[in-house]
Amino acid sequence: MAKKLARQFGCPSEFTLYVLGGKWKTVILCYLKQQPLRYADLRRLIPSLSDKMLTERLGDLTARGLVLKKRMSGPPARDVYTLTPTGKSLSAPLTELYRWGEKHAAGFGVIVSDPFARLRN
Amino acid sequence: MAKKLARQFGCPSEFTLYVLGGKWKTVILCYLKQQPLRYADLRRLIPSLSDKMLTERLGDLTARGLVLKKRMSGPPARDVYTLTPTGKSLSAPLTELYRWGEKHAAGFGVIVSDPFARLRN
Repeated sequence: MAKKLARQFGCPSEFTLYVLGGKWKTVILCYLKQQPLRYADLRRLIPSLSDKMLTERLGDLTARGLVLKKRMSGPPARDVYTLTPTGKSLSAPLTELYRWGEKHAAGFGVIVSDPFARLRN
Repeated sequence: MAKKLARQFGCPSEFTLYVLGGKWKTVILCYLKQQPLRYADLRRLIPSLSDKMLTERLGDLTARGLVLKKRMSGPPARDVYTLTPTGKSLSAPLTELYRWGEKHAAGFGVIVSDPFARLRN
């Protein structure tokens, strides 16, 4: 179960980072900002997260009201995770986090994969 | 000493979050984006961080090339922390993290302080 929100924060960005809730939850939100995704898609997008860790993070994001599990009519019918309106409101910071990484990876000498390429294989 | 950068990341936002390096380092960068600050100012801005924790985080941000300690001529002369060009390049994501918190705190029923008011008292 998600931790209750602290009532007071020292600054606005501290609050935003608290809502985002850490690296992997932020990465999940970045992916769901692109498109609704099945659980199996998220597993392929973030192979370093175990089932237990991914399930916990999705549960926390759902409890915080940022993510919603939704049945999409088929065929075949399937359950997808998608952003709630509150989750969508985080679009600007999520976009800028993604863009900075795209632009600056080469300067840091690091290789950054195109995560959605993993879904197409 | 800062951890070495991993050479490969699964997606751009994962890399950005790795560079930002967690909640408190991101909050420190948000403050330094506003203005260069003395160590004592940062201590007042983030009272919940101990000396040890703040020193460690500043050391890590310096080692990563995001923050620089600089002597400002006086009188009185004083040492301030300021963003390097790489630190400044993070301006867009830092701004959006701050803005989202400002805009949405009330909707979450939380109180967010104006951190710089603490420096004026």
